Amino acid sequence: SPIFLLVSHESVLCFVPLGGCKADWRPSNSPKLIDLLDDTVPGIGTYEDFNTIDWVREKSKDRDRHREITNKSKHSTVALLFSISDAFSGWLLMLLIGLMSGALAGGIDIAAHWMTDLKEGVCLNGFWFNHEHCCWASNETTFQERDKCPQWKTWAELMVGVSEGSVNVLNHFMYVSWALLFAFLAVILVRAFAPYACGSGIPEIKTILSGFIIRGYLGKWTLIIKTITLVLAVSSGLSLGKEGPLVHVACCCANILCHFFTKYRRNEAKRREVLSAASAVGVSVAFGAPIGGVLFSLEEVSYYFPLKTLWRSFFAALVAAFTLRSINPFGNSRLVLFYVEFHTPWHLLELIPFVLLGIFGGLWGAFFIHANIAWCRLRKNTRLGHYPVIEVLVVTLLTALLAFPIEYTRMSSSELISELFNDCGLLDSSKLCGYTSNSGSTSGSVNATAANGLGARLAGPGLYTAMWQLALALVFKMLITVATFGIKVTDLDVFLKAKQNIRAQASKHFFFFLISTLGGVTRMTVSLVVIMFELTGGLEYIVPLMAATMTSKWVADALSRESIYEAHIRLNGYPFLEAKEEFRHKTLATDVMRPRQSDPPLSVLTQSGMSVEEVERLIADTTYSGFPVVISQQSQRLVGFVLRRDLVISLENARRHQEGVVSVSAVLFTECDPPASPSAPPAVKLHNILDLSPFTVTVHTPMEIVVDIFRKLGLRQCLVIQNGRLLGIITKKDILKHMAQMANRDPESILFN
Amino acid sequence: SPIFLLVSHESVLCFVPLGGCKADWRPSNSPKLIDLLDDTVPGIGTYEDFNTIDWVREKSKDRDRHREITNKSKHSTVALLFSISDAFSGWLLMLLIGLMSGALAGGIDIAAHWMTDLKEGVCLNGFWFNHEHCCWASNETTFQERDKCPQWKTWAELMVGVSEGSVNVLNHFMYVSWALLFAFLAVILVRAFAPYACGSGIPEIKTILSGFIIRGYLGKWTLIIKTITLVLAVSSGLSLGKEGPLVHVACCCANILCHFFTKYRRNEAKRREVLSAASAVGVSVAFGAPIGGVLFSLEEVSYYFPLKTLWRSFFAALVAAFTLRSINPFGNSRLVLFYVEFHTPWHLLELIPFVLLGIFGGLWGAFFIHANIAWCRLRKNTRLGHYPVIEVLVVTLLTALLAFPIEYTRMSSSELISELFNDCGLLDSSKLCGYTSNSGSTSGSVNATAANGLGARLAGPGLYTAMWQLALALVFKMLITVATFGIKVTDLDVFLKAKQNIRAQASKHFFFFLISTLGGVTRMTVSLVVIMFELTGGLEYIVPLMAATMTSKWVADALSRESIYEAHIRLNGYPFLEAKEEFRHKTLATDVMRPRQSDPPLSVLTQSGMSVEEVERLIADTTYSGFPVVISQQSQRLVGFVLRRDLVISLENARRHQEGVVSVSAVLFTECDPPASPSAPPAVKLHNILDLSPFTVTVHTPMEIVVDIFRKLGLRQCLVIQNGRLLGIITKKDILKHMAQMANRDPESILFN
Repeated sequence: SPIFLLVSHESVLCFVPLGGCKADWRPSNSPKLIDLLDDTVPGIGTYEDFNTIDWVREKSKDRDRHREITNKSKHSTVALLFSISDAFSGWLLMLLIGLMSGALAGGIDIAAHWMTDLKEGVCLNGFWFNHEHCCWASNETTFQERDKCPQWKTWAELMVGVSEGSVNVLNHFMYVSWALLFAFLAVILVRAFAPYACGSGIPEIKTILSGFIIRGYLGKWTLIIKTITLVLAVSSGLSLGKEGPLVHVACCCANILCHFFTKYRRNEAKRREVLSAASAVGVSVAFGAPIGGVLFSLEEVSYYFPLKTLWRSFFAALVAAFTLRSINPFGNSRLVLFYVEFHTPWHLLELIPFVLLGIFGGLWGAFFIHANIAWCRLRKNTRLGHYPVIEVLVVTLLTALLAFPIEYTRMSSSELISELFNDCGLLDSSKLCGYTSNSGSTSGSVNATAANGLGARLAGPGLYTAMWQLALALVFKMLITVATFGIKVTDLDVFLKAKQNIRAQASKHFFFFLISTLGGVTRMTVSLVVIMFELTGGLEYIVPLMAATMTSKWVADALSRESIYEAHIRLNGYPFLEAKEEFRHKTLATDVMRPRQSDPPLSVLTQSGMSVEEVERLIADTTYSGFPVVISQQSQRLVGFVLRRDLVISLENARRHQEGVVSVSAVLFTECDPPASPSAPPAVKLHNILDLSPFTVTVHTPMEIVVDIFRKLGLRQCLVIQNGRLLGIITKKDILKHMAQMANRDPESILFN
Repeated sequence: SPIFLLVSHESVLCFVPLGGCKADWRPSNSPKLIDLLDDTVPGIGTYEDFNTIDWVREKSKDRDRHREITNKSKHSTVALLFSISDAFSGWLLMLLIGLMSGALAGGIDIAAHWMTDLKEGVCLNGFWFNHEHCCWASNETTFQERDKCPQWKTWAELMVGVSEGSVNVLNHFMYVSWALLFAFLAVILVRAFAPYACGSGIPEIKTILSGFIIRGYLGKWTLIIKTITLVLAVSSGLSLGKEGPLVHVACCCANILCHFFTKYRRNEAKRREVLSAASAVGVSVAFGAPIGGVLFSLEEVSYYFPLKTLWRSFFAALVAAFTLRSINPFGNSRLVLFYVEFHTPWHLLELIPFVLLGIFGGLWGAFFIHANIAWCRLRKNTRLGHYPVIEVLVVTLLTALLAFPIEYTRMSSSELISELFNDCGLLDSSKLCGYTSNSGSTSGSVNATAANGLGARLAGPGLYTAMWQLALALVFKMLITVATFGIKVTDLDVFLKAKQNIRAQASKHFFFFLISTLGGVTRMTVSLVVIMFELTGGLEYIVPLMAATMTSKWVADALSRESIYEAHIRLNGYPFLEAKEEFRHKTLATDVMRPRQSDPPLSVLTQSGMSVEEVERLIADTTYSGFPVVISQQSQRLVGFVLRRDLVISLENARRHQEGVVSVSAVLFTECDPPASPSAPPAVKLHNILDLSPFTVTVHTPMEIVVDIFRKLGLRQCLVIQNGRLLGIITKKDILKHMAQMANRDPESILFN
């Protein structure tokens, strides 16, 4: 399934739980239920929901913590043991994430397999057996007809008692009913318990990894519901890729497990390193491709990916792959769903069709992104998006109705792919292998059937209206025609061997086309090639695969710069600072900083000389998330920076707990007290919440350098000075707005801080 | 050869051209000859040799250049075409690098193969045929004895005319003589023409990529000599890995090709991006592993590796692999030297020996690094290092003497490995395959021979004294005993099939041990696994391979934190800011900045009010490579930063070309002129060389953040301010010295700026 579904899984983004989660990102909308695990005691150094973290501060905090533990460890044995356990906790956490994600992925595979079969019939020996297991246990199964055994009853057989003829309608009805039930359950569960469980999850995870906070997005309810609905959605026959959801599931596991380790619970930056590794784990279990997973995390998802994270991801992906292999959901002792080998070496001239397929894939990928975004925008802005349940049910109904009649569309797409790609053996019962074909069909028509099947399959779910489906089916058929062009010029009826070769050739081209499309949609290159050869063992084909993915990326990039994930991030207005593209405009820090020339001057605090009341008034009058502290209003020489949240909490705390604090009490940011009259009320000392090393740039600093600093250091804000005088401030949001403006987009599309 | 040789190739570091290049890093020592290509017109914005570049400045320069081209392109068609060609020049450059490196690598492979055979005999049909080609052309070759044909004469046959008996001594003599001749030629060439062609090259390339300048290190003479000596050294039978030298060769190609593109010739940062890609190309052609190469560059060599470079590396590695495949040096239409498949799936319990082998490999790797560094230090500090030519000849002599008698040590290590790893086929003439074994040896003794052979082989060259060799041989034999333990508990003489399995088992363990050792020496993880499965096609073994390499890395890291490359970088005192390890000490910027409290105050320039004479005196009195510019000596408010080199050049230029400039002329760093008396001589305006946006930190900024900024932004220096007043400066060298001090090492070991 992965390949197919990766291509179309993005559809799910706008799809499973829909309207309810995209349009309403406000925290108030996420039910309290899912916040339980993520709630931390409000206090200094934490962040509001839907805000961006300060990487530098978080990393400093972690280093302080580490130093403290190291120092203590010199004095007592207990502390030493604690320090050692702390040092290993990262690896332990990785181990646990790998185990948990691997086990979940194995469970999902097994459950989805069973429920997919449940749509067709039930096992009399025990309803918990799937079709294959049911017939394994049977003594009456012959090798030729592995699929048929008396214990396995279709619904028609069970209810009417006959297995031939018109009862097929009954089977069809049951099939559609089950599919609708599964889909309905999935949508209802998501809506009721975990709106965040919707969609692919990768755009949000990418944003979270870049330093954004969405509480509950990786919570336990999301995990539970996402796991269940993934099984339901896959079983209902909807065409969705497991890799996005599995990355989300793995990240949820990681986030939940982080709560058992102080080091990671308390530190947003460290937690993000773990999440980076978890996204590698997700891909590792989705495809059985551990190295591909690591590269996926590096190339596609992660924002900050130091070598240490690389090694940890590698370890976690290894454990997860190993766990999955031990569970052995596919019963073949392999990590992967289908193990294909292209045994024939390739010729130089073959590069031409491969590159052509790359071009097609790139075009198709770019078109897909465009259409997907246009559709999402439509749903967001019109009434279309108001009926998510109905929408899902309609799509499921259409898919199920269309899928049942043809054998190839009915099988799960992983089965279909192995059917298409596996070499024909003598014991193979596949109809695609000429010699067991019972209908006297020619290879040509068999291929045509397969092509039709594929067309319908791929068309079914990805896109939501009949027109859209039709267009998709047409395009796909056209492309498959191109891909299978080799068949038509070859003499078809020579002998068996030739048929096999033809099939191999056609499936090879189809495979390259799928990969190129995937490359065009996601703009992955290295990771895609690695995943593909981990998936198929096609080591011989590295060079052509590289050529195809690279071409696809070039073509797609030429049409639009954004991958599907970035397009969705932008659609949702997340504050994501893209690291791929350089900022190339010749603007200076002075052009971007606030206040603008016409605005009132910057709101600053002075290090001494302000009263509690004055500070509180400043807080009430402004909405800034932080204030610079200067020596005096006249000199504007910078002392430090204080965050609004810290300031509010500290002042409240002082008012409540510190004796004698009144509105006229002085607020001091200095370490030493200035001389004060003995009759004055005690001062509120806030030196401890003052950041004495805020980042500064000068007014002349080109924005390209500022953007670079923000990206590389993960800043949240930066102060602008000239000749030692504080002049303004630049926040991440200012930068994103400026970038949007420079790219002629609406700067107001950036919604969050 | 790669596996073996990678393990021991580091030896070459201290080895091929030696003393002459490590101890004397001073520019004066590198002959003028090799500087031709690297000479740029001295001018503003260039760097001195053995200095560190400023990444931020270089990248700004490139963006300015890009903007200028884009702006011009709107006005004329020619400029538009130029702009398009400029945009594609990066990819074109990658294409050229791939083609050139692939061609060179192919040539090296072919030449080395021929010259290795030349040591044993010559082809009568034409001396330019190697043994294999000679016998291919012959009609008298039977399939069973492919190796023997009348056209191929050993030296003894040619000179004495008989082929049996005691003439073996003559063959042995010729073998040794050729080996000595090759080795002598190699050393002489390096000494005479390109001292920089010595050693592996990877530590220097790593340093260059981090922003250091070593002129001539990647010049055309280095390229020519390195290519020739690589062939000679490999042919002489010395145990050296091709991958280090090939990375160096690819980087030379890249550097030379950069000179044809203004964009890269003029910009040190852009050139380093190209070099990162080139090091991927080097590994790609060394192992035929393009993806492994990209990951090697990412994990091991590169300092700054944005996604754009990832894609370009990927493309260049692809082209290089493709070129190599087209040249087809191994005559098997594959990219790799040996294509091995472990067909048998592995069992869970097998993980235990694999992990044990990982531990052994890690221990051995750490020991190897330690011994290698100790030896290099000894050679550097004692008279031992004064006789490089003799040293090389002695090692070659010993290797050749020991290698000749045993068939397995005589064959090149790539042949040996394929001999060991390939499955036994019916047509296989290898003695290791039981059924064609003409001596009635049992499988056990065959394995013993192989083990002996391996022991001798690996012992031969890596280390330079007999004692060392002995120890190495002992350790290796012990380890091989452990590794082949499985053989001894199995019943050996059951039947043929069993023998094959045993060999597969033993070679599997040996393979894992080699990989773990390599992991222990270089601390590669992901890249190593990818290289290995690109090399062998052992896709089934991803999980155990990952487990072994990860274990090996852990064990080796526990013993010492540095890989062999980093250890050599430190040994040579290069200014390399390691990105792997976090700086964890609680020092502040104020503890590291210059001037220290007892020192005289910081030498600064004022933005106006200084005369040419004063500035020149300041330059003469100090050796700093740059000066901060402040508003006035009293306020110490920072205006900007000016580099010594730029200042010197500008003042000289003004003195020479600007009329009326005398010693009392004012030097102005302001944009607008201050009021001056009409009688005053014309001022020298240096506003254009002033960097108005120097990086600043405050005195309170923790050093961990400062280190992070230096690493991530590639800074060269950073100014320290407090409340708007300039207090000091921190340079990269200060940071490296501070880090050395904190790690209880000699801070004076950091030699360069």
